[in-house]
Amino acid sequence: MKGIFSVLVENQDGVLSQISGLFARRGFNIDSLAVGETERHDISSMTIVSTGSQRIVEQIEKQLNKKPDVIKVRRFEENKCVLMEMMLIKVAYNASNRSSLIELCSVMNAKIKHVSAKNFVIEIHDSPDVISNFIELVRSYGILEIQRTGTICMSKD
Amino acid sequence: MKGIFSVLVENQDGVLSQISGLFARRGFNIDSLAVGETERHDISSMTIVSTGSQRIVEQIEKQLNKKPDVIKVRRFEENKCVLMEMMLIKVAYNASNRSSLIELCSVMNAKIKHVSAKNFVIEIHDSPDVISNFIELVRSYGILEIQRTGTICMSKD
Repeated sequence: MKGIFSVLVENQDGVLSQISGLFARRGFNIDSLAVGETERHDISSMTIVSTGSQRIVEQIEKQLNKKPDVIKVRRFEENKCVLMEMMLIKVAYNASNRSSLIELCSVMNAKIKHVSAKNFVIEIHDSPDVISNFIELVRSYGILEIQRTGTICMSKD
Repeated sequence: MKGIFSVLVENQDGVLSQISGLFARRGFNIDSLAVGETERHDISSMTIVSTGSQRIVEQIEKQLNKKPDVIKVRRFEENKCVLMEMMLIKVAYNASNRSSLIELCSVMNAKIKHVSAKNFVIEIHDSPDVISNFIELVRSYGILEIQRTGTICMSKD
């Protein structure tokens, strides 16, 4: 199962090292991590996505709660929250496939942010599944570079 | 100055802990961090934004390059790359200010992703400055929750 955790932490040196150390020592895999500021400068928010058995996911939650710099841990279910990710991807084009690439971006709500003579920098923001699908769709054109943010999520209620 | 680093790393247990430990031990501040997959499952990409004197920023680059699991470090200048961030923000509304909040979202290209009886989940993706500006603009309505991804960047060439 997928464990989606939103963790509020004190924004101070070493807190990221504490959290990532916990995952490393216990062999918990981190699929995705996003760290951002909140409306308070002394508090940061981390969204961590991990995969494992139900037991592992419960253990992660418990261990996170034990860390001194952790203020609050919430676990989300995929279908009860808004899950979003963003990607910048540099894709090559040539005279014969340029139009089809532009069409693909348009139909997938991806935005061409920069145009060079031989490649586009494309931005897409959507659910992680749609982003992975977009990568597969443009693979044949030639992917030069990918930058994905981690997933962020917010409860709907 | 702002140090913007894009770091390709081996996707294995403990690499995040290594990198964040380096920052913590040396007292380098991390303003923003985004960790995502690349087109290869064994390689992850991290974008780290840090602030410090030119000497500090150069030191960070040097130290990152020394880590065994680091494949490649690139440093970006703000005006030579596409810099993007995404945010989900939950904002309260009432009957008298609902229309003005919807208008504000429209003019700022922010999208209302979920509507509840008393609040909106709003998504905005733009440069980090525009995102910070949006937070100030909606502050008076009542911010219930913020989730920001870290910044990601891509060179234009």
